[in-house]
Amino acid sequence: MDEISTLCAELEATWHRDIPPAAAMAIAVARYDGTVLEVRAPLAANRNVHGTVFAGSLFSICVLTGWGTTWLGLRRHGVSGSIVVAESHIKYRRAVGEDVLCRCSAEPATIDGAASQLEATGRASLALRCTIDAGGKPAVTFEGNYVVRAPHG
Amino acid sequence: MDEISTLCAELEATWHRDIPPAAAMAIAVARYDGTVLEVRAPLAANRNVHGTVFAGSLFSICVLTGWGTTWLGLRRHGVSGSIVVAESHIKYRRAVGEDVLCRCSAEPATIDGAASQLEATGRASLALRCTIDAGGKPAVTFEGNYVVRAPHG
Repeated sequence: MDEISTLCAELEATWHRDIPPAAAMAIAVARYDGTVLEVRAPLAANRNVHGTVFAGSLFSICVLTGWGTTWLGLRRHGVSGSIVVAESHIKYRRAVGEDVLCRCSAEPATIDGAASQLEATGRASLALRCTIDAGGKPAVTFEGNYVVRAPHG
Repeated sequence: MDEISTLCAELEATWHRDIPPAAAMAIAVARYDGTVLEVRAPLAANRNVHGTVFAGSLFSICVLTGWGTTWLGLRRHGVSGSIVVAESHIKYRRAVGEDVLCRCSAEPATIDGAASQLEATGRASLALRCTIDAGGKPAVTFEGNYVVRAPHG
């Protein structure tokens, strides 16, 4: 496996081993090209009383997609840290009645900036946006502010 | 059982039967006095890579506590409808390293207004706030906008 495939496998294994709800929601890495991360989850494991995807699952998939984008970007810089979400806003525009595909894009400059900030001060913050479409139209928009702390910061 | 106990049992059974992630997170009704709803979930089923409660679980517990507060309040008015969250904001002030207890309070006027609006127009909206403490201090603040539609609206 190349570096990206190895990191994606490690990310998904971490989620399933260390976050029981992520395993229960069957959240998995779909694709990562070094900038854009796509994460998927099946409708069946995540349905709500309306037979569409549970709002809490949609949020969880988004928050992990942003987390994973940060983790992958920093690891590719050879940097690691403790990543947490500090605040977020989510807007549900339409119900998702199909398997979920969530997308997060972090420009190289965003990750470069966070890696430099982390190395210089032991702490970095970054704002990420995740989106989910349904039936070919925008369904969910998520904005999250993440904080990264150096392992011994 | 009195009316409130019966409704709380029905609410929890609905969550566990119809929302697989709510069952996996072991989300349960702790207390309801007609105004304040408290919902609990164990740390073990909801931990993250840091050994504290997963941000997606904290959000899911909050979104269901607001949903349940709406559902219970409307049912006590003899009204039912399809309840969805349209938008929400969550702030994580500190990690939650213990079992979760989430609290949502809906003033009678808020529920009265939503019930009247629903009966008059077939649609109602209400804004609710949920909170979670950890170690005796505020840990999570959630604000959600919910929309209710009449069954045949």
